[in-house]
Amino acid sequence: MKIKSEILFRILVSAAWFLLFLPAGIVAQKRPSARELGLAIGVLPTGKWNAITDVSGIKVGHSTLLKGDSVRTGVTVILPHDGNLFQQKVPAAIYTGNGFGKLAGSTQVQELGNLESPVVLTNTMNVATAMEAVITHTIAQPGNENVMSVNALVGETNDGWLNDIRGRHVTQHDVLDAIKNATGGPVPEGSLGAGTGTVCFGFKGGIGTASRKLPVDLGGYTVGVLVQSNFGGVLQVDGVPVGEELKKFSFSNELLNNVDGSCMMVVATDAPLDSRNLHRLAKRAFMGLAKTGGIASNGSGDYVIAFSTYKGNIVPHNTAATELQMTVLHNDEMSPLFMAAIEATEEAIINSLLKAETVKGFKEHTAEALPLPQLRDILKKYNAIKK
Amino acid sequence: MKIKSEILFRILVSAAWFLLFLPAGIVAQKRPSARELGLAIGVLPTGKWNAITDVSGIKVGHSTLLKGDSVRTGVTVILPHDGNLFQQKVPAAIYTGNGFGKLAGSTQVQELGNLESPVVLTNTMNVATAMEAVITHTIAQPGNENVMSVNALVGETNDGWLNDIRGRHVTQHDVLDAIKNATGGPVPEGSLGAGTGTVCFGFKGGIGTASRKLPVDLGGYTVGVLVQSNFGGVLQVDGVPVGEELKKFSFSNELLNNVDGSCMMVVATDAPLDSRNLHRLAKRAFMGLAKTGGIASNGSGDYVIAFSTYKGNIVPHNTAATELQMTVLHNDEMSPLFMAAIEATEEAIINSLLKAETVKGFKEHTAEALPLPQLRDILKKYNAIKK
Amino acid sequence: MKIKSEILFRILVSAAWFLLFLPAGIVAQKRPSARELGLAIGVLPTGKWNAITDVSGIKVGHSTLLKGDSVRTGVTVILPHDGNLFQQKVPAAIYTGNGFGKLAGSTQVQELGNLESPVVLTNTMNVATAMEAVITHTIAQPGNENVMSVNALVGETNDGWLNDIRGRHVTQHDVLDAIKNATGGPVPEGSLGAGTGTVCFGFKGGIGTASRKLPVDLGGYTVGVLVQSNFGGVLQVDGVPVGEELKKFSFSNELLNNVDGSCMMVVATDAPLDSRNLHRLAKRAFMGLAKTGGIASNGSGDYVIAFSTYKGNIVPHNTAATELQMTVLHNDEMSPLFMAAIEATEEAIINSLLKAETVKGFKEHTAEALPLPQLRDILKKYNAIKK
Amino acid sequence: MKIKSEILFRILVSAAWFLLFLPAGIVAQKRPSARELGLAIGVLPTGKWNAITDVSGIKVGHSTLLKGDSVRTGVTVILPHDGNLFQQKVPAAIYTGNGFGKLAGSTQVQELGNLESPVVLTNTMNVATAMEAVITHTIAQPGNENVMSVNALVGETNDGWLNDIRGRHVTQHDVLDAIKNATGGPVPEGSLGAGTGTVCFGFKGGIGTASRKLPVDLGGYTVGVLVQSNFGGVLQVDGVPVGEELKKFSFSNELLNNVDGSCMMVVATDAPLDSRNLHRLAKRAFMGLAKTGGIASNGSGDYVIAFSTYKGNIVPHNTAATELQMTVLHNDEMSPLFMAAIEATEEAIINSLLKAETVKGFKEHTAEALPLPQLRDILKKYNAIKK
Repeated sequence: MKIKSEILFRILVSAAWFLLFLPAGIVAQKRPSARELGLAIGVLPTGKWNAITDVSGIKVGHSTLLKGDSVRTGVTVILPHDGNLFQQKVPAAIYTGNGFGKLAGSTQVQELGNLESPVVLTNTMNVATAMEAVITHTIAQPGNENVMSVNALVGETNDGWLNDIRGRHVTQHDVLDAIKNATGGPVPEGSLGAGTGTVCFGFKGGIGTASRKLPVDLGGYTVGVLVQSNFGGVLQVDGVPVGEELKKFSFSNELLNNVDGSCMMVVATDAPLDSRNLHRLAKRAFMGLAKTGGIASNGSGDYVIAFSTYKGNIVPHNTAATELQMTVLHNDEMSPLFMAAIEATEEAIINSLLKAETVKGFKEHTAEALPLPQLRDILKKYNAIKK
Repeated sequence: MKIKSEILFRILVSAAWFLLFLPAGIVAQKRPSARELGLAIGVLPTGKWNAITDVSGIKVGHSTLLKGDSVRTGVTVILPHDGNLFQQKVPAAIYTGNGFGKLAGSTQVQELGNLESPVVLTNTMNVATAMEAVITHTIAQPGNENVMSVNALVGETNDGWLNDIRGRHVTQHDVLDAIKNATGGPVPEGSLGAGTGTVCFGFKGGIGTASRKLPVDLGGYTVGVLVQSNFGGVLQVDGVPVGEELKKFSFSNELLNNVDGSCMMVVATDAPLDSRNLHRLAKRAFMGLAKTGGIASNGSGDYVIAFSTYKGNIVPHNTAATELQMTVLHNDEMSPLFMAAIEATEEAIINSLLKAETVKGFKEHTAEALPLPQLRDILKKYNAIKK
Repeated sequence: MKIKSEILFRILVSAAWFLLFLPAGIVAQKRPSARELGLAIGVLPTGKWNAITDVSGIKVGHSTLLKGDSVRTGVTVILPHDGNLFQQKVPAAIYTGNGFGKLAGSTQVQELGNLESPVVLTNTMNVATAMEAVITHTIAQPGNENVMSVNALVGETNDGWLNDIRGRHVTQHDVLDAIKNATGGPVPEGSLGAGTGTVCFGFKGGIGTASRKLPVDLGGYTVGVLVQSNFGGVLQVDGVPVGEELKKFSFSNELLNNVDGSCMMVVATDAPLDSRNLHRLAKRAFMGLAKTGGIASNGSGDYVIAFSTYKGNIVPHNTAATELQMTVLHNDEMSPLFMAAIEATEEAIINSLLKAETVKGFKEHTAEALPLPQLRDILKKYNAIKK
Repeated sequence: MKIKSEILFRILVSAAWFLLFLPAGIVAQKRPSARELGLAIGVLPTGKWNAITDVSGIKVGHSTLLKGDSVRTGVTVILPHDGNLFQQKVPAAIYTGNGFGKLAGSTQVQELGNLESPVVLTNTMNVATAMEAVITHTIAQPGNENVMSVNALVGETNDGWLNDIRGRHVTQHDVLDAIKNATGGPVPEGSLGAGTGTVCFGFKGGIGTASRKLPVDLGGYTVGVLVQSNFGGVLQVDGVPVGEELKKFSFSNELLNNVDGSCMMVVATDAPLDSRNLHRLAKRAFMGLAKTGGIASNGSGDYVIAFSTYKGNIVPHNTAATELQMTVLHNDEMSPLFMAAIEATEEAIINSLLKAETVKGFKEHTAEALPLPQLRDILKKYNAIKK
């Protein structure tokens, strides 16, 4: 479904943009998710929306910047809860898969074991802008009048092939909008928000999400994942060698030698995990990336941010009680959560590819969407889908 | 090919044991490797032997302990080079995928960036025995008369389901034998050495190996991997959901809830990498494990030991020159090596399963070999092999 | 030398500001350095300037913001060399002593082992501003026309007690000025640049520097350190319990319970160290902090940035040669460098306290300079100085 | 108090050995501790015994090997509690100051956040022996009949200058004896147990201990430290430059260039800390080492093992409840504990030097005890003690 002209392209993206603000349930999104295509990645059941928002209380917001020929970028925000995050921090951890990236805020999350801001994703050159916006947002919140130190957690991938990244087009306003507009329920995926200009396995990448809900005898917890996909390797879709079949993978030709990239992964759970076990959970998301054929190339900024929304473990910024009562899952119960994080990450990445439309941008570069008819043929050839 | 009786079993293992000492090229091993089965994992070409020994100078040795009803364990040794390893150290790094394991020697390798002993793999409860043997070996080598500190690098997985592991049956002698008998060329795989008693994805695991040789325009370097497979998850063979098809995977039933395990991975290369880039390379082996369906469960000791044999970068224990001249690969050239490590690890694990014969042992527990006829059917169903 | 009135204060700081731009050798700085006071910290000799600039090629620049009653902040920049840092990167590493801080750029330095931007220090709430400025600076440099990814390394401490930190008063212009004005030779110390509003051990802290030059038989290398001091504990000056004598230390009274803080440390050397050994060197700076009585309190962001200027080890951004020839010091030769880093850091911190003048600022808070007459008496009492 | 002859020496050590088994309160130890000498390191009060055993429930045991001319080594054991440690694990963490050492068990403690064995210290070449003993001890305990995996935590320093370390003279029996004989109350210090043959700052080192008890308004918790001192640098005793005064420090002459070494530090607390905050606490012990003048030289194995004995946070090996209720200290309350760990480690190291008697051993090497009359003079000269 290659976009034929720039004019058509602009119409389409405007339309897509408009549709985002319709009630999510109504939107007739043209491209299918992995489930809609007939794929069933992994062995565990999904949550209700098959989205990070299946973890109760989480909200996601996007700002998408599509301007002129060359601006193809944006912002995606994940809010762990509705309240004042600075005053009510959540246990968190960060795993660095490959650290060629500009993730801001990582050392404090690791040291203190918690997160005190929205998680913001954007492009490589606008990390500072997003930090400014998070600080602006935080110090303006009621109750934060005396706050003088804010650890803004901002991740990025490089959309410089489709986007005029040196122009640093994202504004604080765009970030604050994404925070303000964040909602629960179904999460729009594909070429929008921080995924507007990203490229993955040589195709158009973007935002993807998925979730797993453990059976009650394995704990009953939910794990949700959201990714900003922008990396290379040899694409496998539910184990099927799609990249090889399409003859499009890293080192297969000159162009693909030079397409590098990154993947930001956000893992949320309602399981009562402290930062140590959240770090372990985060590492499993990186395993999910591996299952899609990602190779975490030298130039990749592959980071996983994991947090727990378990209500009893909220960390108050100020507290009379110096000793906190926490609930923590016994190490032995972690394995099903690990499996859930792997599966949800794999599916979130595939969803990001499936939902993303072709985008043409900077210097007339075009990132084609993963071609659906060919994809279906390949998946059928390898018996991954029936029809 | 289920073993019917204990007697038959003993005959078989004795025969297998005997065959090990025939010249490797002559041995008619009954079970096929992945390549022999028709699988072509990944996109990069293999080295000559498709083994860790394709990295020039590396030798591998095994001691296999099969005694009575209950002893099913052993030792596998990897020698980076033929010389005095203590005097001529090799750049090295260790990556911890999941640290529920007793790997000895890791902190010094990380601190100093090099390896000064053979790499030894054995069972969990005999790590100390193997350390003693490595020390004995090292201080007895000519030139090491004054050595008073030896960092023995010993990894393990837990073979306690098939092996009387509390009996700690491995002796220093077994370890020294494996060192002495180490050779280059083809590497025997399956249920032998440190893989004698291991179980992987609910089937018999063991020792597996594979390699990749980069095309000249990607550097021309070789990456070799050897694994001791003993872990769980949802088995995928070259992307095919074999575990699901066989209805045998983690959390699929009561038994498999309780089968936990580990994977030791050894990655060698002739590329001129320092310990920083070896650590990055080691991390990619863990991605290869992910592609087989491993989940790095809570009880898993998943470690990767990586070293470089590049001749110009040998680190002398004593040296007149305080400044060493080294050759190091530019970061930008790492990505093909990363891909090679992922592919070779995935294939080494699959080889460990394919080559391993059914083993009956401790408490009459039996670990069935991956059933070949059914496996072939499944691989054909998913179009991974032709016949 | 307590400041008596706001008017006098403004006159003084204006004067101080003016004097900064006089040739450094001419400036008559009122307060003495540790050496001028008669202290000889450690056993190794200093470099020529006893400053980070003793490492050949390094330049330091400051922007000091003193506006109205409440703006007491600034920027300090360290340039590893004169050229295009993005194109000619230097081996580098970062050690996190205590990670309650907003250091930007750390994960990429650790992953790639090098530094591609100036090192910038400022206040906690202006990290993003400084990142923006570093990106602006880098993409504007000749030769960087196609650069689309810049890892800005920006550290901070929190000057919110003396400075209206929520106002985020530092501008990109201030940062670019500090880069532009950076020079070699003597480094102005005390309440200026990023140290304008910092508080250390309950006294006025600031910028301090020191260096060590190893004897030829220990390698002859130079180690230089620059600190931005803003932390608490129990002050010891060359081992003398000054904090106890002055009855001013952490937990000694209500006020000091609440004064927390951080210390940014930058360590430079001309020794041929790769990032692994630079990380080890960085860790020793944290030991130097310990010797001043710092406790790395919970709220402290104590980071060390270490880099090597050794000419032969510059890492080119683009290169025809995929294999680089490097010179690396043998591990065995590291210990004298470790000692040098400890001593220089200890002395740099003491210098930051000695050189800093009393500053009054935000909400009429005043940080008194370490009182010299009393200090001299105490040092004499403990026989650390003669007169 | 130099030992004049080998015969006299043997009499003395036999006597010392005998005295160890007298009730600790009665033993008239000849050499003074830091407190007995009149030193008051730091600002916080000590616990009752000024020993690691001030943390309720902790026991310490020693085995001292003094045989013939050349065996000067031993074992020191720290038991976090009286019960079955494998079944009732304690939260724990490990910090690596400098990793040139053979510490066994570190990766599992870090991964799982707990400790399941006694902490054992011995010489470098007997780590494996001690691991074997810990495994023997653990699998023989009632309740551990099915245990097939034991993470033995064994640290070491190299006593090869005074001890025939290549002879590996420690036996499993020695280790088991130390476990069996472990007691609470006062802890014998100096040249015994794992400190029998160690050398520190060029003088005889050994075992030392100290503790701090926080005032109630700072939490009231106790922190206890035990060290095995065997390292170099420039000795400072409570800030006084003793090494410089005695002209005996690293790089001051040929001999001291070659005396390298290590320090094992064990930090215990009754504060309710999880492994993340125990890791932070462990790092502060390394700061205590820095305050004695240690430089963590290249060849040093400086590790800190920290654990919490807080009763409510014991981690059961098997449990019906998958979610555990824990009490964790708020991050903000950590700083006084950090100060306590720094002070107690500094004092424990000084105590190890003060209590150690001169020892002559392997190859007629002699490590002189820190000379008390000279030390007293120096401390008086610098006003650290009054008389």
